[in-house]
Amino acid sequence: MTGSALPADLDETTVTDAAVASFDHTPDPRLRACLAILVRHLHAAVREMEPTIEEWEQAVDFLTATGHKCDDTRQEFVLLSDVLGVSSLVENINHRKSPGATEATVLGPFHMTESPQRELGESIDEVGKAEPCLVTGRVVAVDGTPLPGAGVDVWQADEDGFYDVQRPDVLPPGTGRGLFTTDDDGRFRFTTVVPSHYPIPTDGPVGRLLLATNRHPYRPAHIHFIATANGHIPVTTHIFVADSPYLDSDAVFAVKSSLVRDFHRTDDPERAARHGLPNPFMHADIELVLEPARGAGAE
Amino acid sequence: MTGSALPADLDETTVTDAAVASFDHTPDPRLRACLAILVRHLHAAVREMEPTIEEWEQAVDFLTATGHKCDDTRQEFVLLSDVLGVSSLVENINHRKSPGATEATVLGPFHMTESPQRELGESIDEVGKAEPCLVTGRVVAVDGTPLPGAGVDVWQADEDGFYDVQRPDVLPPGTGRGLFTTDDDGRFRFTTVVPSHYPIPTDGPVGRLLLATNRHPYRPAHIHFIATANGHIPVTTHIFVADSPYLDSDAVFAVKSSLVRDFHRTDDPERAARHGLPNPFMHADIELVLEPARGAGAE
Repeated sequence: MTGSALPADLDETTVTDAAVASFDHTPDPRLRACLAILVRHLHAAVREMEPTIEEWEQAVDFLTATGHKCDDTRQEFVLLSDVLGVSSLVENINHRKSPGATEATVLGPFHMTESPQRELGESIDEVGKAEPCLVTGRVVAVDGTPLPGAGVDVWQADEDGFYDVQRPDVLPPGTGRGLFTTDDDGRFRFTTVVPSHYPIPTDGPVGRLLLATNRHPYRPAHIHFIATANGHIPVTTHIFVADSPYLDSDAVFAVKSSLVRDFHRTDDPERAARHGLPNPFMHADIELVLEPARGAGAE
Repeated sequence: MTGSALPADLDETTVTDAAVASFDHTPDPRLRACLAILVRHLHAAVREMEPTIEEWEQAVDFLTATGHKCDDTRQEFVLLSDVLGVSSLVENINHRKSPGATEATVLGPFHMTESPQRELGESIDEVGKAEPCLVTGRVVAVDGTPLPGAGVDVWQADEDGFYDVQRPDVLPPGTGRGLFTTDDDGRFRFTTVVPSHYPIPTDGPVGRLLLATNRHPYRPAHIHFIATANGHIPVTTHIFVADSPYLDSDAVFAVKSSLVRDFHRTDDPERAARHGLPNPFMHADIELVLEPARGAGAE
């Protein structure tokens, strides 16, 4: 423990340097650097806002309510980070990809439970009320080499716009989720439903923020993917449904035009039979392209 | 609800303007301005840190744990604001007092329960194990006029450094707290114990932050005051005990030399008898000076 003596009588011009200096003896240099950046920007924001004491109390209350809303199936701070554009910024910074790799986008607040391991071709829709959709795809390297044995973690809302954790009374846990392993040719396939656009949860502090600021809470329809493969950088992304509303005003700033795909009605009785689907059926094809890990071939 | 169309393909250089613009239709201009400032500074901090996804997740986890630690008697976000110097900055900004008014300092996380209304002269120490201390004082205007009928809200740790809410098994609720009204001459008086210096609570995320950064958690001994009077600006402040350790390295950056007072042993049998105290006794005298409300004479 180190207690550097404070300059006497800190005021609004000297307290920032004192707060930064209080972290000078942090052993981890990365933590020390991040705290210095955080303190300087937080203080700069406060100096610019000049909040009243009541406004500072409102901010404390908002953060407290946001924390209280978080539980095993709800992550309100991720939602807050999402609607402030912070998640999108962090993803963009972390994925300055080589041209040709699949673009990343935000994780979102619904990757809370582990997806069930599933066989290729299995349905992730355990309810079976809506029109079935075949999703086929491939995980490849930027040079086009297929990546066998790659992990494909999938999660999505249903045709009414709900994730399993949001309607535990109606949706069996794991519906809309699956963890697949690509075959010898880097391919994966599963059946599901075409997801609907949906509002992010509005029954918490973040929903109240959107309401108070006249922002709509909607996200365009999408399926989440995390693809992982040995020797490659994992990608966390979405595939967006091409004709979905809100593609041009996503509440969480996550749309990339390169991630929009057609989900089209297909009339192919032989293929339908092969996948155990009625004909015609919906179909989307998705290629996930991974960048080699830095340090080439490592892992 | 308004949904301005987003520019397609937001990237790390364009997402900040998009996030700011998303709040453009906020009806309350003050909220709109604060959100724009917050988004710009948050994004600037992220851009400077370039956090990994894992670091972003750690930040989300830290905020979530901080929220979960908050309850009716614990305010971990206030503690976080305190140790980052934000509370001190906000207080300083809000109290650009006229010369002569008592300086303000931080509220701290222990003003959670309402102080019991007490008669002048009453003891706020409901345990009675430690040496008694007489506190006398006066609430006056900057021109020296006494302020009768002023409210004096007092809360403090005991001789072992604990507030009532921290040791509910040992300390009756309300011990160390009192709400007094000044007499016709603006005076107040009560008996108590000389508070000890103490560590801020370290059993939560903020304590773990201090540990990871080699910061000590101690605050110098002090008594909290909020003084309020008609036609005057309330002041939230502390009176610090002159010879306390940690006056030069307060964990929450709140010490002002103008707020340090002698607590001295007094040998005055007549005065002791008048206040029902053993002789000799400890004594501190405190003047709280309030600035007139802006708009003169208005409440």
